[in-house]
Amino acid sequence: MSTHGDLSFRVRDLALAEAGRHQIRLAEHEMPGLMALREEFGAAQPLSGARIAGSLHMTVQTAVLIETLTALGAEVRWASCNIFSTQDEAAAAVVVGRPETGGTPADPRGVPVYAWKGETLPEYWECTDEILRWVDAEGVDVGPTLILDDGGDATMLVHDGVTAEKQGAVESDPQPGDRGYSGEKLVFLATLRASLASDPQRFTRLAASLKGVSEETTTGVHRLAQLAATGDLLFPAINVNDSVTKSKFDNRYGIRHSLPDGLNRATDVLIGGKVAFVVGYGDVGKGAAESLRGQGARVIVSEIDPICALQAAMDGYQVARLDDVIGSVDFVITTTGNVAVVTAAHIAAMKDKAVLGNIGHFDNEIDMAGLEALPGVVRTEIKPQVHEWTLPADVDSDGNARAERSVIVLSEGRLLNLGNATGHPSFVMSASFANQVLAQIELHTDADYLQVGEGGTPDVHRLPKELDEKVARMHLEALGADLTELTKEQAEYIDVDVAGPYKSEHYRY
Amino acid sequence: MSTHGDLSFRVRDLALAEAGRHQIRLAEHEMPGLMALREEFGAAQPLSGARIAGSLHMTVQTAVLIETLTALGAEVRWASCNIFSTQDEAAAAVVVGRPETGGTPADPRGVPVYAWKGETLPEYWECTDEILRWVDAEGVDVGPTLILDDGGDATMLVHDGVTAEKQGAVESDPQPGDRGYSGEKLVFLATLRASLASDPQRFTRLAASLKGVSEETTTGVHRLAQLAATGDLLFPAINVNDSVTKSKFDNRYGIRHSLPDGLNRATDVLIGGKVAFVVGYGDVGKGAAESLRGQGARVIVSEIDPICALQAAMDGYQVARLDDVIGSVDFVITTTGNVAVVTAAHIAAMKDKAVLGNIGHFDNEIDMAGLEALPGVVRTEIKPQVHEWTLPADVDSDGNARAERSVIVLSEGRLLNLGNATGHPSFVMSASFANQVLAQIELHTDADYLQVGEGGTPDVHRLPKELDEKVARMHLEALGADLTELTKEQAEYIDVDVAGPYKSEHYRY
Amino acid sequence: MSTHGDLSFRVRDLALAEAGRHQIRLAEHEMPGLMALREEFGAAQPLSGARIAGSLHMTVQTAVLIETLTALGAEVRWASCNIFSTQDEAAAAVVVGRPETGGTPADPRGVPVYAWKGETLPEYWECTDEILRWVDAEGVDVGPTLILDDGGDATMLVHDGVTAEKQGAVESDPQPGDRGYSGEKLVFLATLRASLASDPQRFTRLAASLKGVSEETTTGVHRLAQLAATGDLLFPAINVNDSVTKSKFDNRYGIRHSLPDGLNRATDVLIGGKVAFVVGYGDVGKGAAESLRGQGARVIVSEIDPICALQAAMDGYQVARLDDVIGSVDFVITTTGNVAVVTAAHIAAMKDKAVLGNIGHFDNEIDMAGLEALPGVVRTEIKPQVHEWTLPADVDSDGNARAERSVIVLSEGRLLNLGNATGHPSFVMSASFANQVLAQIELHTDADYLQVGEGGTPDVHRLPKELDEKVARMHLEALGADLTELTKEQAEYIDVDVAGPYKSEHYRY
Amino acid sequence: MSTHGDLSFRVRDLALAEAGRHQIRLAEHEMPGLMALREEFGAAQPLSGARIAGSLHMTVQTAVLIETLTALGAEVRWASCNIFSTQDEAAAAVVVGRPETGGTPADPRGVPVYAWKGETLPEYWECTDEILRWVDAEGVDVGPTLILDDGGDATMLVHDGVTAEKQGAVESDPQPGDRGYSGEKLVFLATLRASLASDPQRFTRLAASLKGVSEETTTGVHRLAQLAATGDLLFPAINVNDSVTKSKFDNRYGIRHSLPDGLNRATDVLIGGKVAFVVGYGDVGKGAAESLRGQGARVIVSEIDPICALQAAMDGYQVARLDDVIGSVDFVITTTGNVAVVTAAHIAAMKDKAVLGNIGHFDNEIDMAGLEALPGVVRTEIKPQVHEWTLPADVDSDGNARAERSVIVLSEGRLLNLGNATGHPSFVMSASFANQVLAQIELHTDADYLQVGEGGTPDVHRLPKELDEKVARMHLEALGADLTELTKEQAEYIDVDVAGPYKSEHYRY
Repeated sequence: MSTHGDLSFRVRDLALAEAGRHQIRLAEHEMPGLMALREEFGAAQPLSGARIAGSLHMTVQTAVLIETLTALGAEVRWASCNIFSTQDEAAAAVVVGRPETGGTPADPRGVPVYAWKGETLPEYWECTDEILRWVDAEGVDVGPTLILDDGGDATMLVHDGVTAEKQGAVESDPQPGDRGYSGEKLVFLATLRASLASDPQRFTRLAASLKGVSEETTTGVHRLAQLAATGDLLFPAINVNDSVTKSKFDNRYGIRHSLPDGLNRATDVLIGGKVAFVVGYGDVGKGAAESLRGQGARVIVSEIDPICALQAAMDGYQVARLDDVIGSVDFVITTTGNVAVVTAAHIAAMKDKAVLGNIGHFDNEIDMAGLEALPGVVRTEIKPQVHEWTLPADVDSDGNARAERSVIVLSEGRLLNLGNATGHPSFVMSASFANQVLAQIELHTDADYLQVGEGGTPDVHRLPKELDEKVARMHLEALGADLTELTKEQAEYIDVDVAGPYKSEHYRY
Repeated sequence: MSTHGDLSFRVRDLALAEAGRHQIRLAEHEMPGLMALREEFGAAQPLSGARIAGSLHMTVQTAVLIETLTALGAEVRWASCNIFSTQDEAAAAVVVGRPETGGTPADPRGVPVYAWKGETLPEYWECTDEILRWVDAEGVDVGPTLILDDGGDATMLVHDGVTAEKQGAVESDPQPGDRGYSGEKLVFLATLRASLASDPQRFTRLAASLKGVSEETTTGVHRLAQLAATGDLLFPAINVNDSVTKSKFDNRYGIRHSLPDGLNRATDVLIGGKVAFVVGYGDVGKGAAESLRGQGARVIVSEIDPICALQAAMDGYQVARLDDVIGSVDFVITTTGNVAVVTAAHIAAMKDKAVLGNIGHFDNEIDMAGLEALPGVVRTEIKPQVHEWTLPADVDSDGNARAERSVIVLSEGRLLNLGNATGHPSFVMSASFANQVLAQIELHTDADYLQVGEGGTPDVHRLPKELDEKVARMHLEALGADLTELTKEQAEYIDVDVAGPYKSEHYRY
Repeated sequence: MSTHGDLSFRVRDLALAEAGRHQIRLAEHEMPGLMALREEFGAAQPLSGARIAGSLHMTVQTAVLIETLTALGAEVRWASCNIFSTQDEAAAAVVVGRPETGGTPADPRGVPVYAWKGETLPEYWECTDEILRWVDAEGVDVGPTLILDDGGDATMLVHDGVTAEKQGAVESDPQPGDRGYSGEKLVFLATLRASLASDPQRFTRLAASLKGVSEETTTGVHRLAQLAATGDLLFPAINVNDSVTKSKFDNRYGIRHSLPDGLNRATDVLIGGKVAFVVGYGDVGKGAAESLRGQGARVIVSEIDPICALQAAMDGYQVARLDDVIGSVDFVITTTGNVAVVTAAHIAAMKDKAVLGNIGHFDNEIDMAGLEALPGVVRTEIKPQVHEWTLPADVDSDGNARAERSVIVLSEGRLLNLGNATGHPSFVMSASFANQVLAQIELHTDADYLQVGEGGTPDVHRLPKELDEKVARMHLEALGADLTELTKEQAEYIDVDVAGPYKSEHYRY
Repeated sequence: MSTHGDLSFRVRDLALAEAGRHQIRLAEHEMPGLMALREEFGAAQPLSGARIAGSLHMTVQTAVLIETLTALGAEVRWASCNIFSTQDEAAAAVVVGRPETGGTPADPRGVPVYAWKGETLPEYWECTDEILRWVDAEGVDVGPTLILDDGGDATMLVHDGVTAEKQGAVESDPQPGDRGYSGEKLVFLATLRASLASDPQRFTRLAASLKGVSEETTTGVHRLAQLAATGDLLFPAINVNDSVTKSKFDNRYGIRHSLPDGLNRATDVLIGGKVAFVVGYGDVGKGAAESLRGQGARVIVSEIDPICALQAAMDGYQVARLDDVIGSVDFVITTTGNVAVVTAAHIAAMKDKAVLGNIGHFDNEIDMAGLEALPGVVRTEIKPQVHEWTLPADVDSDGNARAERSVIVLSEGRLLNLGNATGHPSFVMSASFANQVLAQIELHTDADYLQVGEGGTPDVHRLPKELDEKVARMHLEALGADLTELTKEQAEYIDVDVAGPYKSEHYRY
């Protein structure tokens, strides 16, 4: 208990609350979706009674999300889902609380936040564990009723906890060289073991009281879909990622903004005239390529999906394999959510001083472990989250001598837009987070379509298109965009209601 | 009977076959998808025994489609689905036949085609009716086994024919002022009446022998979905339009190419520096806007769907209502597939010599009837498919005097890329038509997913994602795009097969 | 004389005058610069007494130029400067005359035009010779007082004529293999010989009465600069090409429009997703590259000037040598005004069915003679101005076998935007031609800066910046562009007059 | 003297030298032009004997410039030309010296630098004064032999100093309300007075020993041209700004990079989908507009020059007056180098939370004094260089009530790319600074064209085109751009040397 108090203290001890409060106030202006939800639902308090455990990058924008959730009646606890992505001033401000609460660092009246920039892995999992503990006035840990997740770590902790509790033991630690071995895996298992040791039914109780989870990312949704496919999903999930106003906005337009921002803050290197290689041409890759081209770079794209590859070609990009052009590119950006798309061998073949960064999801997109294991490699910190990896003179696979050279790696292979800049801008996050808030309401109010039928197991759902369109609608005015209204005749002609929804389920936007 | 011989004669009488043959040969080079299907399936003849009635713009590209269908074993008859869209030289070449057939205009050995540029409406429906007649050696009209449709006119003729035959009568003609009244409606009903009079069970027999229809466009799919929803669809349908390699390629990249092409051939008016208004920001609108911006125009977009509106804004376009800016735009392009999106009142408010064209679907997107009915309006033909409509001096709704002015209307409100230019380029159509060929094979070979269950009625289906990816794959090499292959580890990590399909059904590309 | 009557007759005999008149009327709307000059100077008739011999592509836009010159008081005679670039309907309309003249093909009241689409080379030079003959009422050939030139052919005819008359003989014909040998050179020398034979002082008299020439193109200006450098220029010249409102508009924005237009009308081949190679990155190359990228092509640029090469790279284009990538490009476009930038060896190395076209200046940019001389090459006309050159199977310089393949060559290597489409759009030409009209006025009214000092020889001048800005100003309103006016304080701060000119002479825009 | 020692100390006292050294090493990799000059001229030491007083933003890139000048033999002293633009770590590293010098903060062996981020105005002018003092071993102030200037402050100090010394007095201080009154003016005059008091011929001696100045910016060149025009320029000047490889690269591509960088670091506000207003469409405006569009903003441009306005329109931007659209724009960026292009009245009419920044030159582009003087205005610092100015509820000029609102002003109206980010990236500065180094060599070696003729006064010159092309050439390889070489035949055809220069003096690129 004291430990967790300590974690919380580290954040509120920072005298950053006031700076964070200014930024939150400005961000509110850029988050018309969240503000509209406060306006629409503030009186009704649809989240009254909800206890939300949030695991999502603790930025200024997330602060506005958290305060929207509380404005709608929820109790909230928060951790970040990435060790580098917290903006400490935002965390501090949330802990202290909104101005009207009268909170101070010494007497916080806000939301408990367990997050700071630059956590260690043990700290990270301790924080994640902490948001799932919810001790009521009687000292009983009643747990959260909802999870708001990004990448699925909180959800995984619950599911793997339940499994371990069923089996009465945590799986053994993998050894170096084993599939799935990583330092983080060891920390994760240790976290489970500690819980099991102290309370062997904690996760089982917790899962029983959870009404559901809303998930932010492709990667997290993928994990949920795997659980649902095997019947192992313990509670309904809403896939927020695949709302159009999330995946086609945050993933694309957010990246368009935050990729060059991260590159610039990290390196100050000219992008124009250079060759930039984007690994993957999904929504994130599309935004990445657009932004690099918009800065005058020549962009090369790789893809494994022939449809996306054809899109890249039709959009005017060269489509090539990384292996074939690695020696002549100035930037390599990974956007896939897949593993080892840049290998140590790729890195060894890069141009001197080329820049390498990941904007996909986990840090295994770039084989950082492989890089570290290269013989003679030296890592120099240029500044926090910017490292120069110097490779000794060697011989390539064709027998050609290579001189000593170095590669600049951003955020140690983790998300560069969060590690080297401040993530997506508020406006984009307003759309994503408005979907999150609506999803939490749907889960808390047990929307019909979430129900599990006879003999069934919980499933993963998308938000109804009405809500997706509602989120879009809340963001138009701020951009000066005037929507045209269908006439009754036109609505009938295309068989829709004048108020929408306007498209079939499979429409791709 | 003689009538129909006459129709066919009009096409083959043109001494254009040789010119068409040259163009078809060059188009084959640009249609790697169709050529790959000939290569893959030529020996197996999967369409052997199929009798395909095609209703789709009779262009050079369609000629390559028709000859691919026959190369796979089908018998084919063809009409255009638009009175202006036929390229006569292509029609002539198809009628005469491929070089190896040794056909001549006097002794055609190719495929019967009932289409020419500039049909009258009665001619159009006579042609459409004709492709459904299939007289065998014994003189029996065995009818087609498959329809390949674009916009759904052939399918509508069969369905409305069956209905009329059931009721023993064709519905009465609507009167001017009635909802649904149009000159074309009267012609259509007359066509039905003639059939009913000569053979009261013709469409009923015909429908019974039809294995299905593959449909090319949003509009046609919408009609099919309406029929399926009410249980009135008579045979299974494949929605080719919503293959990714169709809707996201043809609709977008095809339009990007053929919109400025149509504008240029029609008017030679500078696009750069001008203000272009694009009505609708679906795939067609996206391609239209991109091409106009690529030419240096300032593009304004209108939308009724808040999600598409938000996309337009995020893509950097002004989003406004046509009413609010009509007086200051130089081009108005409709892309909606909806009705009366440009009204006569809009036209009356346009700038002098502004250009108005439709690239959506039917000619009712622009209220041509309303324009014609404006008092004092004068229509001058500048050249075929380009008309200057001069409006007399008048007073606008705010009481302001307006001088005499004129508006340039392209293709009489029909598809300008087909009427004023040559439609989409071959490469784009190769993707669309490869989907069509695969769909015809699926229908002809009774693919499992097309089957109607117990007590059910036929439905509308999309092609399996494998086939969609297959079509994309067939078009990469020609663009010099090198696909990356997943490692086994990566495929497992994202839970797909190395060979695909790679995405969930709801992925939006 | 009868011969020349015949030339004129070929144009006016065409019953195209009415169609041309419609197009001219629409073009007037798109040429606000010329119409503003008619408005401003119509009453003053500043060109009264001028006899202008024009040699410039005889398009619809040129028709508006010609009629502007006559509206300002000039007498005019016209030829085209390219055998393919005439639009016959425009020529016909100009010959017949404006509506108020009441001219008819039988009784033309317009301007004599010696031009039609598809002249032979002897016809071309006969036409050029003809515009320099100006027989007055007494039957005396008084000659023109001004030349309005494009490419410098008319000016060269006069200068080489004077030289020949001085020497009393025309230089001997070069032989095949000699430097400078070409079929056109022989025709040109024959033209001079005929003139010398019939009137040995004709060009000398003509030159004496010429007040100057205004020249449209880079190529023509280059010829003039060479003459001026050696003291051989016979009369002052105004370099219209280097007005900003010409070189930075016509050369760039005009090409942006007319390059894809020419490609589309010629080939209907998809541009998007393809690789397009642009030879040269001057203003024409910049416009070409922008338009191809705007259509979704991947553009590669070659340059000999390191500054322009650096611009291309910074604009995001790959900069490569044609030799290094020739085997993988789909389009090759020349924009240089230099000679043999695409050689026969390049053509032999192109992809099957690649498209090759010139939008620079003369037809020697592509070595058409070298192509014709390749052993076994076969030329097939696909349609006028579009030829497929089939190269036999052979062995490349590295000893690799190459299969039979073909290349599509546009307009026989001449300007493809004029040969395959209708040249630059009216609005762009309005800026160029407004400069031409102002230049003709400057020459006719003997502007001070054109005067030749003591012992000097005539020189080549640019128009004063005031006039350049005036031309720009005349085109803003039509684009809805509202100019901001300097305050007096601001004008003083940057040391300019509130009314301009605003920039130093060396400012590059 | 002690004072100035103190100034220097402030920089070297910072323990930032090592961090700066890392950044300089990385920047060297991005500055191929400067490194090539070290390579080419290192042995010859062409700047041996030169004493260079530099006044230019003291960034990492400038550090590489300074060390290139010393590598070529020069002695150097440095100040920044902007109170916010110094990167302290770069200044520290330069003061300490290159690694091989063995300098330390306690025992610096580098170049004296008088600059730090956040100088006061008196400090700024003290620093500028200091670089002009050059005390030799004997204690004599021998002064610099060359000035390397940016904006012209050092040059102005010398010229106004000489004038004051001639008149024996400094002009009187202007009073508030007088034309030209500013706080900075008072500081400047005080600086002159102090010098005059202590040494009444100091500037006169100094000017006599100066061989010339090379100037970086439009603004500074304008000042020099004014001096030259009145015969008051005291020594030859080289206008580096108008090298193509400066004005068309730094001004355009540098801004394209550093404008969004500055906006992002300052505000984290989404640019995409917003309306951005760019005041001015010169090279800086062109780069600004391109970068904002590349981020998905809708850009509106204002211009006073009709030619640039026409360019903006043809490039697809709306061209409007700021007055007419001020209420609906989200960003206002000034790029003009003119005065009060954004007035207090404009600011009062802006949208709530709109962002206002200057990337032109001086801080008077935005009327900051006027803003400060608005009744009831409140300035809140969000973070350094980012201020929120809150305007009280009031009534606009049309009598409409306006609520309280705020505007975000960047860098107090000074250059936002330097104040809020790190200025242009190294690669762009490499081109600008290679021009500077070449200009310094030309001045130091008394190039012929700089000489003053009989009775003449010194003038302002541009670098010869050969050097401009040389600078471009030095930057191609790093971008992977392969230059094509003219054949001898081609060079003759266009009358240039194979090695260049390739273009006429008036060519605009």
